[in-house]
Amino acid sequence: MTQGTSAQATIGDSEFDRDTAVTLREPGVYDTELSAGWTIINAVNGGYLLAVIGRALGQALPHPDPFTVSAHYLTASQPGPAVIRTETVRSGRTLSTGQASLFQYDEEGREVERIRVLASYGDLDALPDDVRTSAALPAIPPVDQCFGPQDAPAPIKGSTAITDRLWLKLDPATLGWALGAPSGKGEMRSWFGLADGRDADPLSLLLAVDALPPTAFELGIQGWVPTVELTVHVRCRPAPGPLRIAISTRNLAGGFLEEDAEVWDSADRLVAQSRQLARTPLGR
Amino acid sequence: MTQGTSAQATIGDSEFDRDTAVTLREPGVYDTELSAGWTIINAVNGGYLLAVIGRALGQALPHPDPFTVSAHYLTASQPGPAVIRTETVRSGRTLSTGQASLFQYDEEGREVERIRVLASYGDLDALPDDVRTSAALPAIPPVDQCFGPQDAPAPIKGSTAITDRLWLKLDPATLGWALGAPSGKGEMRSWFGLADGRDADPLSLLLAVDALPPTAFELGIQGWVPTVELTVHVRCRPAPGPLRIAISTRNLAGGFLEEDAEVWDSADRLVAQSRQLARTPLGR
Repeated sequence: MTQGTSAQATIGDSEFDRDTAVTLREPGVYDTELSAGWTIINAVNGGYLLAVIGRALGQALPHPDPFTVSAHYLTASQPGPAVIRTETVRSGRTLSTGQASLFQYDEEGREVERIRVLASYGDLDALPDDVRTSAALPAIPPVDQCFGPQDAPAPIKGSTAITDRLWLKLDPATLGWALGAPSGKGEMRSWFGLADGRDADPLSLLLAVDALPPTAFELGIQGWVPTVELTVHVRCRPAPGPLRIAISTRNLAGGFLEEDAEVWDSADRLVAQSRQLARTPLGR
Repeated sequence: MTQGTSAQATIGDSEFDRDTAVTLREPGVYDTELSAGWTIINAVNGGYLLAVIGRALGQALPHPDPFTVSAHYLTASQPGPAVIRTETVRSGRTLSTGQASLFQYDEEGREVERIRVLASYGDLDALPDDVRTSAALPAIPPVDQCFGPQDAPAPIKGSTAITDRLWLKLDPATLGWALGAPSGKGEMRSWFGLADGRDADPLSLLLAVDALPPTAFELGIQGWVPTVELTVHVRCRPAPGPLRIAISTRNLAGGFLEEDAEVWDSADRLVAQSRQLARTPLGR
């Protein structure tokens, strides 16, 4: 994997790990600091937020790995301090279910809820090896035929702090929007990694599913596409090396659209699936 | 629509409405009686349960229609009394978000939580008419070339009470399992209605996404496929007349599978999308 760094970061010692760290305040309650490094324009990325909450739930629940995480986004998060309050809903033998809310503070210091999450956790390493899949690897050209924000002559519209922390190489077939000629197809495909070379783990998959430019760009829609709800299934612990992500939108209607993401690892396994419901920008 | 009844039931006056009715006990708390009429073998259907909870949330929240509903299934529900406790998490101008839990009672009368739900509600009739969809109608043959449980010489394995309340006409291309010759493809397609002729509404769409035989049957897997998590997006108020439902599984691995459902109405509009994570039966 060539992500342009010489000293490669590792799982547990990387920008992503530091910026998603949580500190136990009291049983089930975790303090954190949302980093300005994972913002798009001024919005904190929804996948990054999910990874922060996912880390807190992994510490609070008896099982370590997110299997299915459903998040409803309530109000826009800002960089700065936040608190995550978790509840263990059910502890089973192979799965446990938890709930978490992320709060920030208003001018009077009162808690304002940003996101509420339900999640079921398990142990990915305890799963059997059976695979009976009909899913096919996304058709993404080799890395050297793909393009990232760093390859653009000028900053790509909509790119901001988060692009410095990601290694993205987008399929040129889904880059029409960046050249003013969106394809009209609701598709986005990319190679994906963290810029400091840290390999993927289940928590960074929660980031990955929401880290590409929105499919709406390829539908000719500009502006912010705020997530209403995002559900991620983590199906397998990702192998070291780059990920491939394919996002598609089939139905834009009534001011809303769905975005489905598939994440594949370097061993050609489908490691995560997600779907979100998002709003189209007003007036478009 | 020919569903074999002469006196057609209507929205508000039907088996489905009576069996999903909830009674206000105190603000935000609703009593209900889970009907034995919506069971598969001895399990209460997960989509029926979601419709009951969805009705309670529609009464508790300031907006009437489910837009996105995420349910985590905790313990198996039984026919009989239940209580639904709701919380209004956020009330916005166009969307409100709520939480609900359905409880039943153990032998000592203590509440046992069955399902926990996060949901965002809105007003389907207030949405703009824009549609920019690439989704295609499922290829299901005409009704008279499809088959339902009533067409089988003997009761189809796995069919039980719920089949008397549904009008299902399955695409023969996805019926191999019923003849002992599953196709190996994770697909199930059917015409869908309620047996008493009641038309679809947003609440019955919550039932519809989980009412077909599981795709696992066509993958050669028998037995119960319990849902861990199910998220439904309702995208449009369905027109009167029969629905068409297509379910697909792309990835069966590690003892879990996803089931994606699309529901189309008689006006050829994609009215609901869902995805669930389910467990494959043990030992298969």
